[in-house]
This record gives sequence, C-alpha cells and structure tokens, in this order.
Amino acid sequence: MTAYDTDNVFARILRGELPSHTVYEDEATVAIMDIMPRADGHVLVLPKAACRNVLDAPSEALQAVALTTQRMARAVKAAFAADGVTIQQFNEAAGGQVVFHLHVHVMPRHDGVALRPHTGAMADAEVLKANAEKIRSALSAR
Amino acid sequence: MTAYDTDNVFARILRGELPSHTVYEDEATVAIMDIMPRADGHVLVLPKAACRNVLDAPSEALQAVALTTQRMARAVKAAFAADGVTIQQFNEAAGGQVVFHLHVHVMPRHDGVALRPHTGAMADAEVLKANAEKIRSALSAR
Repeated sequence: MTAYDTDNVFARILRGELPSHTVYEDEATVAIMDIMPRADGHVLVLPKAACRNVLDAPSEALQAVALTTQRMARAVKAAFAADGVTIQQFNEAAGGQVVFHLHVHVMPRHDGVALRPHTGAMADAEVLKANAEKIRSALSAR
Repeated sequence: MTAYDTDNVFARILRGELPSHTVYEDEATVAIMDIMPRADGHVLVLPKAACRNVLDAPSEALQAVALTTQRMARAVKAAFAADGVTIQQFNEAAGGQVVFHLHVHVMPRHDGVALRPHTGAMADAEVLKANAEKIRSALSAR
C-alpha cells in the first residue's frame, strides 16, 4: 500500500487551501460537489481522517462516511426529484481511483438517463453553486 | 419509497431457501459470490436486516456493511493479487438496482483489465466455488 499523500487535492480542500462547493459537514466527514459531475447533483463524501481509500481507512471513518453517504443519497434524490441513486467508490488506480483520499461518489439518477462519460471537463462554477444550494435546501428541509 | 419485498432473491438466500456461495458471515452481514460476476472474485455484501437499499437502511446496518465491505475489499485484493478494488452500490431501478435488498458490489481489479459487461449470463458453479474458496483462504490468513 502506497503511503497517504498529504498534498492530494482533497487533503488540500479539507485544509482550506483549495476552494470547494461544500454541501454538508460534521465532525468526521465533509460532502462537496464533484467538479466533473457525471450527473447534476453528483457529490463526493470524504472522511476528515487522512486515509487513501477503503483499504487503509480506520473503522470510525468508514462508519461515519456510510452515514453521511446515506444522508447525501436522500438529499440528492429529493433535491433533483431523482428516481434512484448510484454510489461508487474506487480504490487504487486499477479500481478507478484518481484522487488518493477516500471518497464516495453519490449520483442522483433518472429513469432512462445514463451517467455522463467522465471526460475530465469541469462543470460551470455557477451551475455547481446552484446545484449545491439545492442540496443544502433539501438537507435543511429534512 | 416502495416497501421491502420479503420474497426478493437475497431475502430468500438469507433465509436459506436458495443456495449461495457464502464467503463471510457475522451477526449483521453476509458476503456471497455474485453469480453474474463482472470480475473474478466479485462478491456482494448484504446486511441481514430487511432493507431495500441505502435510502431506507437502519444506521446500524449501514455501519456493519461498511466494515464488512472493507474486510471483503482487502480479502479479494489479496485472493486475486489485484491492483485495486471497485465498489458499487445501486439504489432503485434508475440507480441500477436489480434485486431489492441492500447490497454492495466489491470487485477486484487488475491494471488494464475492464470490468466485464453485465450480460445476465451466470458463471460456472465450479468456478464460483473455487473463487469463494480463494477468498475464504485470504480471510483466514489475515
């Protein structure tokens, strides 16, 4: 197992060194908008604990991430009137991981609408901001 | 939210009414081989609690599933000398869900090898049995 890189993008976001559209935060986790969303409302759940992925994560971080993932799944389903939610989590490059701080993808889904391909193109910041606001509203309405 | 169907395939497996290749079991969870594997060693983690998916799952079930998912990710990585692990979890049909009892897909991955398409074809029972044995061995070696 490769060591945790303290300069990965999510570590820098957690330290406040890089901006993000944060939609939720508690003692152990943060949820932010994915800036290359595969569906409108695509969010990422991160533990605050420094871990590379599921393979090296402390139990407490995994449990906290599981609860925040449920909270976000419910929120994005409500915020985007979605029919379902797809959750993905990638471990190591062969598993699909690109940023090496544990994160869970939570994507609202609509009947008959495929996920967008991962092109590497960044979403418009105003669109992300508006979608983040929808999710925050759904969270506060619960 | 549609009600939990007590006759779904995984409920029947949990009741022992249908066979499965079980690789792990504890008080709250079971891990079984996916009979339509998208990679050799593809396992499913199920809570014993009756819940449809992440949207309606009790917190305790989610936390137990998270820990068993980590255990299985480590085991399949070791058992198949994998380079990574891909984890997926689908909620409602629009989210990709086919069987309506919460389950997490854990798939060992190798560099440059794509997941097989989900064709609906069942794997050979002897192959599943042999792969289950590899995972049990990896679990007992830890």
